[in-house]
Amino acid sequence: MPIRSTCVSAFRNEVTPLTVYLDNAATSFPKPQSVVDAVQRCMIRDGGNPGRGSHALSAAAARTVYACREELCSLFDVSSPEQVCFTLNTTSAINTLVKGVLRRGDHVLISDLEHNAVWRPLHKLCREGLITLDVFRSYACDAERNDEAILRDIRRKLRPNTKMILCTALSNLCGVTLPLRRIGTLCQRHGILFAVDAAQGAGHLTLSLAKDHIDALCLPAHKGLYGPQGCGVLLLREGLTPDTLIEGGNGMDSLSPNMSDSLPERMEAGTLPVPAIAGLCEGIRAVKRIGIEALSAHEAYLHQVARDRLACFRGLTVYAPHACGPCLLFSVADRPSEEICALLNEYGICARGGFHCAALAHKTLGTPQGGAVRLSFGMYNRPRDLEYVYRALSSVCQHVI
Amino acid sequence: MPIRSTCVSAFRNEVTPLTVYLDNAATSFPKPQSVVDAVQRCMIRDGGNPGRGSHALSAAAARTVYACREELCSLFDVSSPEQVCFTLNTTSAINTLVKGVLRRGDHVLISDLEHNAVWRPLHKLCREGLITLDVFRSYACDAERNDEAILRDIRRKLRPNTKMILCTALSNLCGVTLPLRRIGTLCQRHGILFAVDAAQGAGHLTLSLAKDHIDALCLPAHKGLYGPQGCGVLLLREGLTPDTLIEGGNGMDSLSPNMSDSLPERMEAGTLPVPAIAGLCEGIRAVKRIGIEALSAHEAYLHQVARDRLACFRGLTVYAPHACGPCLLFSVADRPSEEICALLNEYGICARGGFHCAALAHKTLGTPQGGAVRLSFGMYNRPRDLEYVYRALSSVCQHVI
Repeated sequence: MPIRSTCVSAFRNEVTPLTVYLDNAATSFPKPQSVVDAVQRCMIRDGGNPGRGSHALSAAAARTVYACREELCSLFDVSSPEQVCFTLNTTSAINTLVKGVLRRGDHVLISDLEHNAVWRPLHKLCREGLITLDVFRSYACDAERNDEAILRDIRRKLRPNTKMILCTALSNLCGVTLPLRRIGTLCQRHGILFAVDAAQGAGHLTLSLAKDHIDALCLPAHKGLYGPQGCGVLLLREGLTPDTLIEGGNGMDSLSPNMSDSLPERMEAGTLPVPAIAGLCEGIRAVKRIGIEALSAHEAYLHQVARDRLACFRGLTVYAPHACGPCLLFSVADRPSEEICALLNEYGICARGGFHCAALAHKTLGTPQGGAVRLSFGMYNRPRDLEYVYRALSSVCQHVI
Repeated sequence: MPIRSTCVSAFRNEVTPLTVYLDNAATSFPKPQSVVDAVQRCMIRDGGNPGRGSHALSAAAARTVYACREELCSLFDVSSPEQVCFTLNTTSAINTLVKGVLRRGDHVLISDLEHNAVWRPLHKLCREGLITLDVFRSYACDAERNDEAILRDIRRKLRPNTKMILCTALSNLCGVTLPLRRIGTLCQRHGILFAVDAAQGAGHLTLSLAKDHIDALCLPAHKGLYGPQGCGVLLLREGLTPDTLIEGGNGMDSLSPNMSDSLPERMEAGTLPVPAIAGLCEGIRAVKRIGIEALSAHEAYLHQVARDRLACFRGLTVYAPHACGPCLLFSVADRPSEEICALLNEYGICARGGFHCAALAHKTLGTPQGGAVRLSFGMYNRPRDLEYVYRALSSVCQHVI
């Protein structure tokens, strides 16, 4: 039964007329002012095309791009700025990696929490008969994280032809994390490539290519690093040079019919998204100023506040008991999650329902047919936002349960 | 012999302290204020992720994206907004097209003016033994455009297995155009796909999917349409649905391991570059306000002014006699083009030397070993810019010839 709008409006005006944004796992909002300013400055002052020509504006754009490569290196322990490749988004980074590295006959292991950005390209390679794929368990529904069980399951599923383990750093649904360093160490020992989808992890977790033994890290500008939409990043361990997925010009070796062998140019065909890169650079600086650990603690606190509040509702199920990351997943009785989100939207609350492009993870968590509602937090959220969600949900639940 | 900087500085201060930007074929600069404002507005107000959730900010972003699809449809005669697919850049659009459409055994025809964004992906498919490739002549060095000869050469090179003709609308080197409508008509008659690289043509030429019988048009936001860097476009004729190059989530059919069959979602995996799309939308509106014909006439006039001025220099060669488009290519005696550009840069002139990611086209035009200098014009250039270039070149040539 849809809730009456008049009642919503009265309640909403009483509490706050503003938007309460809790969809930071889709894209962080708002962006720091320094990010918005950097994008603008790039467009109105340093607006050349980097690597195309050597004139002042092209050089200014090249400096902007290089500064961002350096910030990424320092945040993720990458060996050199040349190992930083820019793409359109995390999905492009993951596709570039898996299609550039995997060969006929390879076996790949992924977790049961993967996003469709991991599942779909690998599934396509399976369908074409190129690779085989297995899924290891995250034990996301257990009361506590069980690293031993995860590692045991991975070891059990390794095959002689396992070429790569590719897994998420942090579930985009429920905030569950995986024991990356231990998986990385296992990969190193077995000579297996270790690739991480940090679409959610970047900016929320301390990730290190060097210390976590990660060969390739894929991440977006626009989520936990607070950059603009329109830029993804593929960070590669020194010595790992994938085949190209996309070929074209980039100002290097123009007379050759082939892409350059050297990184990052090999992986960067065509014009780069320089304004988005300029924004990402400032986003990283904003994250560094606060510190990943402080951000992570802030989000864990919000997660706990939300979890405590949601526990008050009968008929409301919260998933992944041991999670404490920047997002939280719940369903309300047998109601479609989209309906709950639409009702929350009437209160000015931005939350996402449905299946969040993560079929595997929803199956793992056992969410109902109508999907689930995700609240996802960022640096600008405060406990009062969750207080407001609690009050809105109290009203919503009265009507829908 | 490098020119002395003191002499440059004196001359430059006397004439103008400002940048004279003549590298619009690499990226247009400056951008209209409305474009910069739209990018900012998108980031600070409509900053949701379109297609992810149904809340207010996601819906606002979706409206932004849809408005841009509509503007593209109206500018290029596309049948519906669903046929508009956004990518990172033109190179990605071309790769997506050719790898999604061509199959083993296909034959492809391209012109001898193509950019590496066309040549390199096709060359890779050739190297892998998947396709064969032939090059038709543009007769760019002739005194006048010879459409008959071009069509004759194309007809001569058609084979029973020719699947696609892919060619540039406008050379990125010299401004030469190709007889698109006639090539499109020929393709239609022979049941061949006609694809056009409008990296340079978009915004400079009147292009129509419907009237020019174009099946696929690839173009950038950031050149003749005055949008930001970080967005390319693949426009598809109704009924043409390429296989995917990149798979991932996009908020559609989340539970399926496969990409949706419907456009544009099939071709748009991962988060779209929404700020760049917002900017592109305003860029198109700016172009429409002036009108493509007026812009084209303006650029042809600048081309002629530049050509007349450059004709005064002994030892300076201008290429492609019949060209009148928004760029112009020249070399100065036996001097490396990069050296000339570096000297022009000391005068605050932004021009691009080298090979402009277009090996085939340089070979066609017969430029020397050191490449050539390109001046490329945009809506903000004025004849006085070329007057300034003339004076700077007078000084440069005294020293280098």
